[in-house]
Amino acid sequence: METPQDGPGDTIGDWDSCSADPQYRAAVLDLLGALAYGELSAFERLAEDAKLAPSLEDKAALAGMAAAEFHHFRQLRDRLTEIGADPTEAMQPFAEPLDAFHRLTAPADWPESLVKAYVGDSIASDFYREVAVRLDSDTRDLVLRVMADTGHAGFAVEKVRQAIEADPRIGGRLALWGRRLMGEALSQAQRVVAERDALSNLLVGGVEVRGFDLVEVGKMFNRITEAHTRRMAVLGLAS
Amino acid sequence: METPQDGPGDTIGDWDSCSADPQYRAAVLDLLGALAYGELSAFERLAEDAKLAPSLEDKAALAGMAAAEFHHFRQLRDRLTEIGADPTEAMQPFAEPLDAFHRLTAPADWPESLVKAYVGDSIASDFYREVAVRLDSDTRDLVLRVMADTGHAGFAVEKVRQAIEADPRIGGRLALWGRRLMGEALSQAQRVVAERDALSNLLVGGVEVRGFDLVEVGKMFNRITEAHTRRMAVLGLAS
Repeated sequence: METPQDGPGDTIGDWDSCSADPQYRAAVLDLLGALAYGELSAFERLAEDAKLAPSLEDKAALAGMAAAEFHHFRQLRDRLTEIGADPTEAMQPFAEPLDAFHRLTAPADWPESLVKAYVGDSIASDFYREVAVRLDSDTRDLVLRVMADTGHAGFAVEKVRQAIEADPRIGGRLALWGRRLMGEALSQAQRVVAERDALSNLLVGGVEVRGFDLVEVGKMFNRITEAHTRRMAVLGLAS
Repeated sequence: METPQDGPGDTIGDWDSCSADPQYRAAVLDLLGALAYGELSAFERLAEDAKLAPSLEDKAALAGMAAAEFHHFRQLRDRLTEIGADPTEAMQPFAEPLDAFHRLTAPADWPESLVKAYVGDSIASDFYREVAVRLDSDTRDLVLRVMADTGHAGFAVEKVRQAIEADPRIGGRLALWGRRLMGEALSQAQRVVAERDALSNLLVGGVEVRGFDLVEVGKMFNRITEAHTRRMAVLGLAS
């Protein structure tokens, strides 16, 4: 997806200067906690979904994505510790929404798990990119570093295409599945936005915006949904 | 455990010279295939067992062990490819025995999964060490490199001790569990030994031994079992 139109090109300063503002600090702790738990739960689910793989190569590919998510988790957790936060405390508020997302979107078979791996990886990239532009330079560097290491899901695209070619009837089911994944992701994200004011303010306008702006959050979700729609089309799935 | 008494200090040559012998080559493909599948299945099971973790820190610790196993897997798989083997084909004969081991030893709770992580990691180290002395220098370097990166299970020792201190009654159950893990591991290993002649010859005497020697295999299993017994004692568990 494109760089969001409303994102500033320059950063707002480094962590030391920005974190003097307690609201900014709280927002970044929330963000890193949410990303860290997101990576940890992605690790768990990908490792679990690897069981559905029809071959050892496929299993290894999904396990490799899971291992990559774990390394992201570790970087985010270490950063939380470095800035004096308790990683567990920072992650806790996001455990239930993310667990709920995964519980509600357990893949029934291998093609569903491939679509989920691809969609999940892509939504995460989009979100990292959206949020990076609003961050202090140190946090931004971390987020971009973690993001640069995503995109392991590329192999999923080819596999899903092959599966649809081999049996065109599954296309309809997978298109429905892609919509459901996006719907559940948005619904859990909205729950987080409603509960975490500091994080929401950061997401919509950066440190200078104090008022909670539902319209801006909606716009961000729209951009991510549009990118999702384009990706589903590339995959040969009408969303 | 100690270095096995019967292992030579020097290697038998490098891969290029040793692999000219088709029986040696077959044995090493078997060995790397068995280790690779062992790491991949350990990854899967540790990731699965991480769900039993009572806290996010514990979950992250087990997930970290799983990610390390995946990196071992990748090194072994890449080496198989490098020497012109098909990794999937090399792993296939060991999939069923290793899957059976894990199926028969699914932990019922968190202390059982800790004991399994520790015992599994330790048996793997012992086995790597036993086998390393019989290998050509290139394969030995790989095996020692992968092994040097084990020992992530150290945290499990402390956790199990704490659990037994908090509730001494679980000691008996975990001691039984440790015995069962070792018993199932030996039973699957014996199955592999019976089916894979080239690998068995390598394990018992190196490339120069042609005759299948059940006594030597028995001695190796004894050494590993003795090391297991000592470790269980360290853990506060009578084995």
